[in-house]
Amino acid sequence: MSMNTFGHLFRVTTWGESHGPALGATVDGCPPGVEVSAEMLQHWLDKRKPGQNKFTTQRREPDAVEILSGTFEGRTTGTPVQLMIRNTDQRSKDYGDIAEKFRPGHADITYFQKYGNRDYRGGGRSSARETAARVAAGGLARAALAHLAPQIEITGCMVQMGPHRIDEARRDAAEIANNPFWTPDPVAAEDWADYLDGLRKSGSSVGAVIEVTATGVPAGLGAPVYAKLDTDIAAAMMSINAVKGVEIGAGMGAATLTGEENADEITMGPDGPVYSSNHAGGILGGISTGQPVTCRFAVKPTSSILTPRRTITKSGAETEIITKGRHDPCVGIRAVPVGEAMMACVLLDHLLLHRGQIGENQGRIGG
Amino acid sequence: MSMNTFGHLFRVTTWGESHGPALGATVDGCPPGVEVSAEMLQHWLDKRKPGQNKFTTQRREPDAVEILSGTFEGRTTGTPVQLMIRNTDQRSKDYGDIAEKFRPGHADITYFQKYGNRDYRGGGRSSARETAARVAAGGLARAALAHLAPQIEITGCMVQMGPHRIDEARRDAAEIANNPFWTPDPVAAEDWADYLDGLRKSGSSVGAVIEVTATGVPAGLGAPVYAKLDTDIAAAMMSINAVKGVEIGAGMGAATLTGEENADEITMGPDGPVYSSNHAGGILGGISTGQPVTCRFAVKPTSSILTPRRTITKSGAETEIITKGRHDPCVGIRAVPVGEAMMACVLLDHLLLHRGQIGENQGRIGG
Amino acid sequence: MSMNTFGHLFRVTTWGESHGPALGATVDGCPPGVEVSAEMLQHWLDKRKPGQNKFTTQRREPDAVEILSGTFEGRTTGTPVQLMIRNTDQRSKDYGDIAEKFRPGHADITYFQKYGNRDYRGGGRSSARETAARVAAGGLARAALAHLAPQIEITGCMVQMGPHRIDEARRDAAEIANNPFWTPDPVAAEDWADYLDGLRKSGSSVGAVIEVTATGVPAGLGAPVYAKLDTDIAAAMMSINAVKGVEIGAGMGAATLTGEENADEITMGPDGPVYSSNHAGGILGGISTGQPVTCRFAVKPTSSILTPRRTITKSGAETEIITKGRHDPCVGIRAVPVGEAMMACVLLDHLLLHRGQIGENQGRIGG
Amino acid sequence: MSMNTFGHLFRVTTWGESHGPALGATVDGCPPGVEVSAEMLQHWLDKRKPGQNKFTTQRREPDAVEILSGTFEGRTTGTPVQLMIRNTDQRSKDYGDIAEKFRPGHADITYFQKYGNRDYRGGGRSSARETAARVAAGGLARAALAHLAPQIEITGCMVQMGPHRIDEARRDAAEIANNPFWTPDPVAAEDWADYLDGLRKSGSSVGAVIEVTATGVPAGLGAPVYAKLDTDIAAAMMSINAVKGVEIGAGMGAATLTGEENADEITMGPDGPVYSSNHAGGILGGISTGQPVTCRFAVKPTSSILTPRRTITKSGAETEIITKGRHDPCVGIRAVPVGEAMMACVLLDHLLLHRGQIGENQGRIGG
Repeated sequence: MSMNTFGHLFRVTTWGESHGPALGATVDGCPPGVEVSAEMLQHWLDKRKPGQNKFTTQRREPDAVEILSGTFEGRTTGTPVQLMIRNTDQRSKDYGDIAEKFRPGHADITYFQKYGNRDYRGGGRSSARETAARVAAGGLARAALAHLAPQIEITGCMVQMGPHRIDEARRDAAEIANNPFWTPDPVAAEDWADYLDGLRKSGSSVGAVIEVTATGVPAGLGAPVYAKLDTDIAAAMMSINAVKGVEIGAGMGAATLTGEENADEITMGPDGPVYSSNHAGGILGGISTGQPVTCRFAVKPTSSILTPRRTITKSGAETEIITKGRHDPCVGIRAVPVGEAMMACVLLDHLLLHRGQIGENQGRIGG
Repeated sequence: MSMNTFGHLFRVTTWGESHGPALGATVDGCPPGVEVSAEMLQHWLDKRKPGQNKFTTQRREPDAVEILSGTFEGRTTGTPVQLMIRNTDQRSKDYGDIAEKFRPGHADITYFQKYGNRDYRGGGRSSARETAARVAAGGLARAALAHLAPQIEITGCMVQMGPHRIDEARRDAAEIANNPFWTPDPVAAEDWADYLDGLRKSGSSVGAVIEVTATGVPAGLGAPVYAKLDTDIAAAMMSINAVKGVEIGAGMGAATLTGEENADEITMGPDGPVYSSNHAGGILGGISTGQPVTCRFAVKPTSSILTPRRTITKSGAETEIITKGRHDPCVGIRAVPVGEAMMACVLLDHLLLHRGQIGENQGRIGG
Repeated sequence: MSMNTFGHLFRVTTWGESHGPALGATVDGCPPGVEVSAEMLQHWLDKRKPGQNKFTTQRREPDAVEILSGTFEGRTTGTPVQLMIRNTDQRSKDYGDIAEKFRPGHADITYFQKYGNRDYRGGGRSSARETAARVAAGGLARAALAHLAPQIEITGCMVQMGPHRIDEARRDAAEIANNPFWTPDPVAAEDWADYLDGLRKSGSSVGAVIEVTATGVPAGLGAPVYAKLDTDIAAAMMSINAVKGVEIGAGMGAATLTGEENADEITMGPDGPVYSSNHAGGILGGISTGQPVTCRFAVKPTSSILTPRRTITKSGAETEIITKGRHDPCVGIRAVPVGEAMMACVLLDHLLLHRGQIGENQGRIGG
Repeated sequence: MSMNTFGHLFRVTTWGESHGPALGATVDGCPPGVEVSAEMLQHWLDKRKPGQNKFTTQRREPDAVEILSGTFEGRTTGTPVQLMIRNTDQRSKDYGDIAEKFRPGHADITYFQKYGNRDYRGGGRSSARETAARVAAGGLARAALAHLAPQIEITGCMVQMGPHRIDEARRDAAEIANNPFWTPDPVAAEDWADYLDGLRKSGSSVGAVIEVTATGVPAGLGAPVYAKLDTDIAAAMMSINAVKGVEIGAGMGAATLTGEENADEITMGPDGPVYSSNHAGGILGGISTGQPVTCRFAVKPTSSILTPRRTITKSGAETEIITKGRHDPCVGIRAVPVGEAMMACVLLDHLLLHRGQIGENQGRIGG
């Protein structure tokens, strides 16, 4: 029932604001005996860290994570793991201009309407900075997956920036780490660099589509009704700041298919069922098939832009606003490691749930 | 967060299989004093009921809902409301052919792999029949909303069938009830009738996009992080059978927009903030703005088709299957009232959550 | 953690009132493959059933349980199990006298104050009749335990009626089934029969202490902080109608002991640790030791008595009331199978939780 | 479903071990606008702090609490409040002797059996030090109660030490703060000082009974079945280290009463119903009556004593152990502020739940 907790058995509660002393994640339900260190988590945080190139916010935070509890001699003990990240670069003065004005597209206005307070120093709890805590928790989830299901691999990438999709013929997973956009299409990476540089210089911004794929997921994770694997993935991704749409497998495009086109036919391979295609995105009836689990989500353009926009003040006066701050022209870039982290959390959670409720899979095909 | 429960404070647990004695919904957390009757719920079930025209399954179930608990003298008492629907038309013989074979696109195979049993009489728990229980619970949620927030109106419609989108210029909400597809475009209704009839005769099927809109939603519902209003809507819709994608506001299309295009500018109206557009879908930072809350979801084509598809048996032998049964060429049609029901449940749940955690909205703009 | 749901992974939601059409339990999270039938559950309901002798209410309900979902071919499928019991003996006229008056010691007044309705036909949701649903769910939990941990045995008994405790020297578990009080002391059984008959004839009532013991519980169930095994047992027992106190092991008496007296010393036996005593009640730091898990709870005297008591009406007028109805002079009797049922639910729930979070126990003493 | 979280809407997740870098509480669901500061919380922590007199452990921790998130300009914002307490006095060497041996009465053995690790530096997660986090969270709950229901007062005290009960005739709440035992009986305070000093010198320990009372609790909090107010209080108190029994109102003694003795008769006062007595402990049918809510719990004697006790090692060898450390001869003393804190959390949680589910009380007696 909690507002800031995600998960059934592997439960991540993030806490903290963009301009408070610290933020972090309280992780309850991590199995004992998992090898983990601050360095291992830092690896993932560094991937998300802003200020690494001209396309992400110039806010410079070391985003150094500390493990305050839950480990002993380098392994988890089964108790809550507290992951804390100090906020160090909190130049509140940057934001003073907006103490009275609401920024269109930001949560300023709805947060104020609900809670009655206006943390004008930044996005407060609604800041994308909250996702640093998710990435830390996701790092812990990955460590636990490495312990329990080492064959699972999770990879995020950007497949569309603004109107520009990647060319599937050029897709090469090895390219993802070679460009600032985490895109598997090296030509797109070059094109997007020019495109985004133009937007950045004009103070504009643009949206993106992120894809996250998990391979090695065993068949049988999930449930037929509300705790479907796809339901939990959709919730995980939609809970990330600025996300407006989520797709599993064929996604919104499934609407255009006929039953013949959509059917993933089944044959028998040496290790179990083999599917002719993966429109299902690795999930049938809420339960994993053993195929790659695939999802995509759309990130809206950064709402902070230099073009003046009409807005109102707390007292209801009409005005205009330009949001100068230090911002990303395409927040979708930093959403890549966040999407990976959420996928890791969901998969670990469902592995634990499955083990609790089922033990081992009950049905073996072909004997 | 149980496997078959949805909601934080208004908690709906559905139960039952397509071919057991009954199915239903156990609803915990409905406020007391809400006027409700079986007839009021039946209204919504009749809307979903199959067999009403040639485009939906010919399975003929009266789908008569009984209220077994939680009401006294025509009003809810604050105790759990048990809504039961007897299964009456369970011609199991129709399904005998598939006792050994898995139907591609259905949950047969994953359910078997996870749980080790094969309820060959139909979809079992994974059958779309489960959604009847959701519609009944949604009817109760609507009754409670009528009590607590009577200005809220929830409307679902079909905006795309297969590759055919409606023409927005022809959109007329008054048309929704006038055609079997719940579409607001009367010309599309005629075109789709021919199109779907062709698919039906050839034993094929097609997907669809459903839109659900709620007007009159007060500003302030939701939360900034995991219990975002959009997160819960996405989970609600993705949990419906055959749904593969969910969008809020601009949805996946948000990826293609620039910050200037995406910004919903704010001015001040007599009753509070007024937005120039609604790319946000009525939700900013997880919290409702007061604008219409809009979502869309894609329903894949019915997996039961007459064209033979390759599949395997429980013992791992390769074979082919034709699924004859009584099925809908476009299950998206019946997803319309289900989507409305889920929206009603989410909104009521968040109204209660907001009242519990906040009381009344804390911040009033312009006063 | 909903209002009417108990359990983490094995989740029991009871529903229904004493005078509605039916009551029951929606059980989510029962593992698949568990052999169960209505007859198996009926066995436990018959044990609780009223009207079996002169010491329990003469309300005659067959309390026949129906399984409406979640099983196929005699085994659970992993989907929600709906257990329904029809109310057949609802002589509402018996209760007409109390439509306006609140019965002292009953929940009439607080229920009215909270919810604003007065189901004058009986206790409504607060009636002890709700416990029939718990016993049905407990029967299912026992069936699942028989499947997963067949060495676990759960036994409830009455160890005190009013001021009269059993003589521990005479305790003989084999006697429990031989008397209407479920007491292991055959002499007490005779004495109590006379004592309670006197109370019954005078229209009075008395309290009792019930003990529930589980043997064969493996070491390692529970958790160190809030989801302690003893916490969950205490909550389970305190949630039963009329219970005012709960003890684990030495219970309230632990306050009188010195550290030397309280210490359960440990030696090594062939199958693991052996304890010299069991003041801990089989639970140390919230986690089971492998010893018998023991708890006791006190049930207050039935509040419905023939001696007039002062009370008020809905309109606030002072008056007197005699509660004639059909009632038990010692409701503690019927609490015995209810306590057993709750213990079964808690143990199954923790077995599943342990399996989910830990898999197998991590630490083996002595190799 | 979480193992380390308590509460429905006001959710407290404690984290941290006795010898890690820090411990604390992540509090989700605190209403916005509550005035709070580290100083306000420190007040309650100082009350619990060890080392204040010869009767509590000489471990000297400043137990200084920091608020890392969730407040802005001295008030809560509605986001998670992170309360952190650094561990500063972690003299691990004190504990080195017990790296291999299990201490009888401690959770060492069960924790090892479950999780497979042995944090020999102290109690780890099972240490009573965890209760510091509860007291901090309870301080926040008190601040919120002062905001929402300022008439509520919560008072804990010790009413029994070992076999020595207070004399009810001498009970004077004003005395509670005047003695190291938080007892309302000034004569008992003197007697107990001698008694406990003797136990302390001999390296022994003793149990105690703590009472917590809340006055000013409005009628209507709670629910009829599982989320009863008494159920949640019982769970809260039983979850405190070393607690073995919990009583509401007449408690275990309710078993000895007749219906006539137990009935709290009702008359009408100027402000609503007035009860002739309070055997119910302020709770009828799980819902508060408006009378004082009273509970008691028994704390077992400290398990660390100087008399050698038989035990075993990790490798299963039999041995003896003396626990020298720095320990309290009566841990019950420090349980007083912890019990108060848990009561504050439960009451706030139920206030929020009631507001969410009911809004305002529905039924007003006498118009």
